[in-house]
Amino acid sequence: MAHLNSPLVGQAGGARELATPALVLDLRAFERNVTAMQEHCNRVGLKLRPHAKTHKSVEIARRQLKAGAVGQCCAKLGEAEALAAGGIEGLLVTSPVVTAQAFARVAKLNAKLSDFMIVADSATCVDGYERAGEASGKRLKVLVDVDIGLHRTGIAPGEPALALAKKIAGSAHLQFVGLQGYAGQLQHMPAFEERRTQSLAALKLLGRTRDAIIAAGIACPIVSGGGTGTFNIDAEARVFTELQAGSYIFMDKQYGEVRIANAAPLPFETSLFVQTSVISASMPGLVTTDAGLKSFATEAGAPIIHSGAPDGATYFFFGDEQGGIMLGGADKRLALGAAVLCTAPHCDPTVNLHEAYHVVDGDRLVDIWTIEARGRSA
Amino acid sequence: MAHLNSPLVGQAGGARELATPALVLDLRAFERNVTAMQEHCNRVGLKLRPHAKTHKSVEIARRQLKAGAVGQCCAKLGEAEALAAGGIEGLLVTSPVVTAQAFARVAKLNAKLSDFMIVADSATCVDGYERAGEASGKRLKVLVDVDIGLHRTGIAPGEPALALAKKIAGSAHLQFVGLQGYAGQLQHMPAFEERRTQSLAALKLLGRTRDAIIAAGIACPIVSGGGTGTFNIDAEARVFTELQAGSYIFMDKQYGEVRIANAAPLPFETSLFVQTSVISASMPGLVTTDAGLKSFATEAGAPIIHSGAPDGATYFFFGDEQGGIMLGGADKRLALGAAVLCTAPHCDPTVNLHEAYHVVDGDRLVDIWTIEARGRSA
Repeated sequence: MAHLNSPLVGQAGGARELATPALVLDLRAFERNVTAMQEHCNRVGLKLRPHAKTHKSVEIARRQLKAGAVGQCCAKLGEAEALAAGGIEGLLVTSPVVTAQAFARVAKLNAKLSDFMIVADSATCVDGYERAGEASGKRLKVLVDVDIGLHRTGIAPGEPALALAKKIAGSAHLQFVGLQGYAGQLQHMPAFEERRTQSLAALKLLGRTRDAIIAAGIACPIVSGGGTGTFNIDAEARVFTELQAGSYIFMDKQYGEVRIANAAPLPFETSLFVQTSVISASMPGLVTTDAGLKSFATEAGAPIIHSGAPDGATYFFFGDEQGGIMLGGADKRLALGAAVLCTAPHCDPTVNLHEAYHVVDGDRLVDIWTIEARGRSA
Repeated sequence: MAHLNSPLVGQAGGARELATPALVLDLRAFERNVTAMQEHCNRVGLKLRPHAKTHKSVEIARRQLKAGAVGQCCAKLGEAEALAAGGIEGLLVTSPVVTAQAFARVAKLNAKLSDFMIVADSATCVDGYERAGEASGKRLKVLVDVDIGLHRTGIAPGEPALALAKKIAGSAHLQFVGLQGYAGQLQHMPAFEERRTQSLAALKLLGRTRDAIIAAGIACPIVSGGGTGTFNIDAEARVFTELQAGSYIFMDKQYGEVRIANAAPLPFETSLFVQTSVISASMPGLVTTDAGLKSFATEAGAPIIHSGAPDGATYFFFGDEQGGIMLGGADKRLALGAAVLCTAPHCDPTVNLHEAYHVVDGDRLVDIWTIEARGRSA
């Protein structure tokens, strides 16, 4: 229904042509975020391999690469397959895989791409990758995933990680290329100094592991990790060679609450919204919209109203298919068909519910970008 | 990766070929649920128009129709468009729409389908439908959506609903065909007698509205509504002509807690699962799986482990991409690659995250059914 370059909401007399609920991307804010993180990385001497689990889109990957990123991180093989199909190179799969079907897919990705990489945190991974490397006809590049405190994936730092690096380095069809460490437990810690202290302590474990590997005579060119919440701490530790930040392109409520020095917010803007329409307005002080549990991630609370509703209005989930807006008084009104823009409580899983970004520049729809890796969690 | 009729988990020596996380449907349990609800409706003299917002799948719609259903309910136009593309007839859109783009799509659906129906709860809806009916070249069938206590959509019962029915009946390009009422607030009320008392009271409002419409000389052949939680109460009220139940085909934690007379559970079985694999196991008493926030709806709590893990093990969300299983003791083990089957806390929004059902009969994968209307929330 939406026509490119058609006027959207917010323009007097503009047609509300977007079928709602719709995922909306503010192009200029998005571009400023892409530039700000790349310039930060350039300034501090880090490479940027942004995490595609945030956006799952070939077009966004292309734009990050064009701005200077060295590739893309992928949470799952399916995400890597979708980006590879779109011609994206520099893919690093940041979760270990351990099953036969997964190893077969790793072999295909390695055969197809010139610089595919994946992480390992167990001998089971490494054994499977060795077979995949052989099947692919060329060495498979592997990083050791080190657990620096999140206890989700990763092998213990120090001796266990070193032993795994040696096993990889000694495998005929593998190439050890470095380490990964992600202190996910610290990304959303609101107070800067506490986040900084704990991050530097976690990264010290990673740095010592790298030193031990190098001391054992194994090259360790890549140390990959970090995130939006620690973007300006990660450089200070002098451990990482590249950052994996993802959410900075969109921002969300969770990262909106994170503060850096002097209580300043992160230097990234909210660029991602869900547009919804009022479909029912029979009760005083309350209207019903067309965006419910199926249009927003729900685990981080209710959507935040950005524009289109009276001051003080609040959004709540009104079931799978609908949202409700408490207008803040029985005298407040919102017309049937009114468009309301909301920000997502948590950007990554919200994006994963939608098929496309409706890209707006001011009040004009200028492009639609497909979310090729949506749902590719396997 | 998955091959039809290939052995799945649970069979000694069977290959674990499913790429996980994967949505899994137990074919026999699903079929028993389809049959049980249809037989119930036949027995009590109600038609069944199951809600497609639960399954979003052409194949499941076909099977429900073959079992005796009169059509499908759709929450959104996009869902109706996806089912119509698959040749499904008897579609009733159960949410009102009010925008220009939506009215244009209503016109197309009405032109294409022989018996398309949609609900209205405001004069704005009716005016738009009138134009859509005219544009489609034939009368558009409209039900009045009556608010019987949920206050989400629907016009007040009695005089306001009657006035809207008269407006529809007097429109040149519309045909008034009946009423819709959904007491969604009562569906998950665990205690049967309280649910029964409140449901019958809510349905009395709907019955009186129907009587007033008939008394005004307007035929009211359809009264549509009800749900899985009130399936055996809805008949008793003698108001509905057809049931809109959806979740009975899958069941979930929420409906699993609902009780009927004598504290018996609902007579439907859990048929829907998410299969996940253990990908990391470095910590004592804890393993990490490949199914996180992007693979389950999260608003109804954590997934429930069905099989594949030690007794007493519990699942938790370990971020967007991973789950964690607390094994219930440092001595408990779960091997890398082990497959774990979980039931969803809430079936509808969990289905909406996945692209296909992996249909299993015992331990064999027998079919893959596409979820054509996934994400069609607009």
